[in-house]
Amino acid sequence: MNYQFAARMSNMPESFIERLFSLSSKPGVISFAGGLPSADLLDVEGLKSAAVSVFEDEGSEALQYTTTDGYLPLREYIADRYNKRLGLNAGSDEIRIVNGSQQCLDLVAKIFTDPGDCIGMERPGYLGAIEAFSLYEPEFATVGLSDDGIDTVEFEDLVCKKNPAFFYGIPNFQNPSGRTYSQETRKKIGEILEGSSTVFYEDDAFGELAFDRKPRIPVKAFAGENGIMSGSFSKIIAPGMRIGWIYAPAEIISQFDSAKQAADLHSNFLCQKIMARYLWDNDLDSHIRKITSVYSARCRVMLDIMDDLFMDRLTHTNPEGGMFMLAGLPAGISSLTLFERALAENVAVLPGVPFYAGSGGLDNIRFNFSNADEEMIKTGMERLDAALRSLGV
Amino acid sequence: MNYQFAARMSNMPESFIERLFSLSSKPGVISFAGGLPSADLLDVEGLKSAAVSVFEDEGSEALQYTTTDGYLPLREYIADRYNKRLGLNAGSDEIRIVNGSQQCLDLVAKIFTDPGDCIGMERPGYLGAIEAFSLYEPEFATVGLSDDGIDTVEFEDLVCKKNPAFFYGIPNFQNPSGRTYSQETRKKIGEILEGSSTVFYEDDAFGELAFDRKPRIPVKAFAGENGIMSGSFSKIIAPGMRIGWIYAPAEIISQFDSAKQAADLHSNFLCQKIMARYLWDNDLDSHIRKITSVYSARCRVMLDIMDDLFMDRLTHTNPEGGMFMLAGLPAGISSLTLFERALAENVAVLPGVPFYAGSGGLDNIRFNFSNADEEMIKTGMERLDAALRSLGV
Repeated sequence: MNYQFAARMSNMPESFIERLFSLSSKPGVISFAGGLPSADLLDVEGLKSAAVSVFEDEGSEALQYTTTDGYLPLREYIADRYNKRLGLNAGSDEIRIVNGSQQCLDLVAKIFTDPGDCIGMERPGYLGAIEAFSLYEPEFATVGLSDDGIDTVEFEDLVCKKNPAFFYGIPNFQNPSGRTYSQETRKKIGEILEGSSTVFYEDDAFGELAFDRKPRIPVKAFAGENGIMSGSFSKIIAPGMRIGWIYAPAEIISQFDSAKQAADLHSNFLCQKIMARYLWDNDLDSHIRKITSVYSARCRVMLDIMDDLFMDRLTHTNPEGGMFMLAGLPAGISSLTLFERALAENVAVLPGVPFYAGSGGLDNIRFNFSNADEEMIKTGMERLDAALRSLGV
Repeated sequence: MNYQFAARMSNMPESFIERLFSLSSKPGVISFAGGLPSADLLDVEGLKSAAVSVFEDEGSEALQYTTTDGYLPLREYIADRYNKRLGLNAGSDEIRIVNGSQQCLDLVAKIFTDPGDCIGMERPGYLGAIEAFSLYEPEFATVGLSDDGIDTVEFEDLVCKKNPAFFYGIPNFQNPSGRTYSQETRKKIGEILEGSSTVFYEDDAFGELAFDRKPRIPVKAFAGENGIMSGSFSKIIAPGMRIGWIYAPAEIISQFDSAKQAADLHSNFLCQKIMARYLWDNDLDSHIRKITSVYSARCRVMLDIMDDLFMDRLTHTNPEGGMFMLAGLPAGISSLTLFERALAENVAVLPGVPFYAGSGGLDNIRFNFSNADEEMIKTGMERLDAALRSLGV
């Protein structure tokens, strides 16, 4: 058959996400390639109790159709937490529930991007965003990322010259680099955006996973109507329930609603109710403390090995939270080659390549430290050492 | 703020779905406008048991990320049911799980439609499809629908002259008309498509709701590689869980996977597991018999009132299943006027207008008969009678 596929489909980058998920599950492989929360930190009992309560108290409502905007008590909880934790002034009418924050990437690009329009992103940037955005056939414009966040000179230049409808970034514990924007960078972004018609789309999937438990002031606090945020329960409660959200000004929410309704009517109502019930009945902060103390320890182990075992062979970022760090490779070693060689040693790492909207990423690899325990991290890093040595490094 | 929204957003028809959902829930209003399954037919206890089993036996897996394709045992169940019930030859690798079959509308349009491309549809056609497709800026080409299904002469003309990438239709108990394609029409569609590069996208959301419990041979059986189907558990188990699927040839599935992954990574895994468990532990056929006997009785009551009370004032279709019928209005009465007048009498009906990709629908209204019990149907129809009389009919 000669199916008539749309031009946008040939614009899709080769998908790494699916491949890395299947690699992660290959028996015997220690995977630093995925982005999975640690399975033993999922509160199965707590969520089960919440589910039972929902079925008993409001089962037939939870199983029925609902409205596109999302469950109001859940949106109120999210707004309230933003306001208390980050000093924002969010209303529940500015919050919408989506199927995991990945859906925000699709819908935000959908409402803002005509073919050929410019989308701004970090370099390197989140690969799931590159995939989602690519289907809207944009011209990507990237801004370099260092330990302080995006380069604000480059960013200002981009906003002035290309006037993108939005710039997408992850200011906290970025994926893939683990880097965090300094407060100065955040403030400067707000200043640059003032008076422009560019929106800073701040993906805060990892913000709650600060090792020091201190909230960072979001870019949104400096950007006002030029800022939107997305968030997710995937990293702090359970990814399998696919509950994320967007927080945006009313005018954007109105367009977002049209796109969300056309996309799938509404998000899973049963899980929205279970999540809301869980949040009422449990202490989220205490749960997050448990997660961050484990991830922080795992990150520390990985960093120590980086410094001891790999010394001058690999450079690395120093995450203050989240689930990832980025390592730089010595000259002459391709991340794609190391990926294959490491896999032969039964350890999976992710080449930087899919994190670049243009070319790049041959000289770095992403490490996930949330999903392997400390023993596995040690063993995995030893295997990586063997892979590097086999490449003469 | 002067946000830079994409051109496609101005292509969006005025949304009726959201409005009718809010109308449906206004106290005192009897609604024939929505498309909700009857709440008292939801098997809350059965789904609760399934949920408890999932949490107990495989909770941490169900709460974790999974792959884009969907839960394999659920896909196997769907393929198996297609093969046993409809005599198809589906494999689980041709089935993908989505967030309710509305998501298929979005993703199918996404993989097939460049701006200006032709999309074929029934006239009248499903409003959720018009909304989803509109965001891909197509040129709609519609084919008239009568009691035998789409007009195959018009359809052949469309396929030959416009060569659309796909034609979207609902052969069983169509939304909004309640009409069902004859077997002759289905066969003819298969013949017309042979050798063409047009796909018939067969939305079978209602196929299980045949009042006579007899399966109709799907268009897919005649169209082969030119056929794709979508289905849903929303009408037979629970819409709030948002579990639907697509069944398509491998080459389409491959593109679909890319689009689905970019859209939201994967569908809610917890609910996929709960659904699969529910299907293993319960007799779906017996549950469906219960639903169809209720809907069939409600449809009968509505049809009798149509014939007795409205006689020569309203014409109507004669559904063999599903949840909807379409009524034709007398000359000079606008469906939009009747909609407003009926609402003043505390009964909601849906004007035909949003079911037309071009103009149309001022002379008909859609009735839902699944969500109001027989007493409510009687009362609601009396209120409608009052509304009609107030318009001099």
